[in-house]
Amino acid sequence: MTQDFDPGYPAPYAALAASYPGPDVFPPADFRIEWGPIFHRGRLDGSAKVLVIGQDPAQHESIARRILIGTAGHRFQGFLAKLGITSSYAMINTYLYSVYGQGGGNKHAHDPAIAAYRNQWLDTLVANSSIDAVIALGSLADTAYQTWHSTPTGEQYTGAYRHILHPTYPDSAAASTGTPAAELMTKMLTDWNAGLDALHPAITNPDTPTPLVHYGTAMAPTDLADIPSADLPAGCPAWMRSAEPWAQRTGANAADKRATITVSIPVDERPF
Amino acid sequence: MTQDFDPGYPAPYAALAASYPGPDVFPPADFRIEWGPIFHRGRLDGSAKVLVIGQDPAQHESIARRILIGTAGHRFQGFLAKLGITSSYAMINTYLYSVYGQGGGNKHAHDPAIAAYRNQWLDTLVANSSIDAVIALGSLADTAYQTWHSTPTGEQYTGAYRHILHPTYPDSAAASTGTPAAELMTKMLTDWNAGLDALHPAITNPDTPTPLVHYGTAMAPTDLADIPSADLPAGCPAWMRSAEPWAQRTGANAADKRATITVSIPVDERPF
Repeated sequence: MTQDFDPGYPAPYAALAASYPGPDVFPPADFRIEWGPIFHRGRLDGSAKVLVIGQDPAQHESIARRILIGTAGHRFQGFLAKLGITSSYAMINTYLYSVYGQGGGNKHAHDPAIAAYRNQWLDTLVANSSIDAVIALGSLADTAYQTWHSTPTGEQYTGAYRHILHPTYPDSAAASTGTPAAELMTKMLTDWNAGLDALHPAITNPDTPTPLVHYGTAMAPTDLADIPSADLPAGCPAWMRSAEPWAQRTGANAADKRATITVSIPVDERPF
Repeated sequence: MTQDFDPGYPAPYAALAASYPGPDVFPPADFRIEWGPIFHRGRLDGSAKVLVIGQDPAQHESIARRILIGTAGHRFQGFLAKLGITSSYAMINTYLYSVYGQGGGNKHAHDPAIAAYRNQWLDTLVANSSIDAVIALGSLADTAYQTWHSTPTGEQYTGAYRHILHPTYPDSAAASTGTPAAELMTKMLTDWNAGLDALHPAITNPDTPTPLVHYGTAMAPTDLADIPSADLPAGCPAWMRSAEPWAQRTGANAADKRATITVSIPVDERPF
């Protein structure tokens, strides 16, 4: 069988992947530094046309060691597909480590040392790729972009920029407010449609030229897109790119749950 | 913090990591193909002086996606250290996938299609590195070596070769025969000492010149060696290279247990 894979971290990204901030910059009370940094997903070979800023990695990402591969990833991959972008993207996160606990994400939104390292990635990506558009997923990612864009190198970026609601906004807002998730999904898709309107003209050389098709009021199965095998490390099984969940935090108490991820292959992906 | 990492699969290995045998060659009844192929550990940049053939990957290897990082890996890393080899090695396995069930390993020891792919790795490693010695861990690895060495390309290899008992032989033989593990460990270390005697003179240019020091009758803590961070993918946390177990197969029945690996960070490696 043949399967494309992500080749990893070539120069100049290799230096960033070998030297990264640890617990002195990301306090273990607020970040799951114990699972290690998870750097990116997508093209580091200069072919990226769209640069994406996500929020923070979760349990699937901690195992596959690439970002935005779970529910949020599948939804947003569909957004990129509507822009005709099927491979020419690079994604990094606002935070290198998974946020732990309530409020940890907001608390560190303006930490200079966190921004300093993240800005190196943004500088390097923009300097080594022809970026037509930057897309921020959620307000923390928007803050990350604005922080970078106010730096001497960041302000030289003159391409398109759009901040859209985070792909799991309907789920998290439903849990925190009690508003029906379907209503929040409609709200997100309205926001995403406006994002598509703004971004579609900026993608002058898409991978697959695509007439603009808006979302309806709900996310349809055809609105999701597969995570390409070329985005994961060599040998990763296909179910790691599945839209079905396959990793969960387990453990009898908070400490054990923080320290444990159970990987379970979806039943319909088992060859036995 | 700074941490070396394995850069992955450069040419000509990239082609081997992108195109590999699947369930038609490795029957799912005998191999855990659902966890994906796990190709190697060590240097693919031409600097390998020692080529190692292991047996098959287990649960830790399925998560970290590099071979020989668990108990067997730590024991054998110490063997290499006694030869003065601390980084200049490349390891592949007899089987690309974890063996499932009793006897599956022996049953496929002579499968031509399994050998054909494995021989490509051996050919490529020997052609692109200056290999002074090949070491086979266990009898299946010995068969793999002999199979390759009888091919037109394999027979051109004229460097040293040694087959030693597999690093977890004492554990597996104690479980299957009831012989005390300590007795079997002494037997293994006697075999390993003979291996050191044979191989030490063949390593003419070790990484760290080291006078030959034999094992005693038991494996001492100082006989183990750490797995270098340079052997694991970028960002992998240090506990993934720990000698403490951190991955186990869990599940209420055989099917679920086959499909599940629980990753649990060792208590003393938790920053919380």
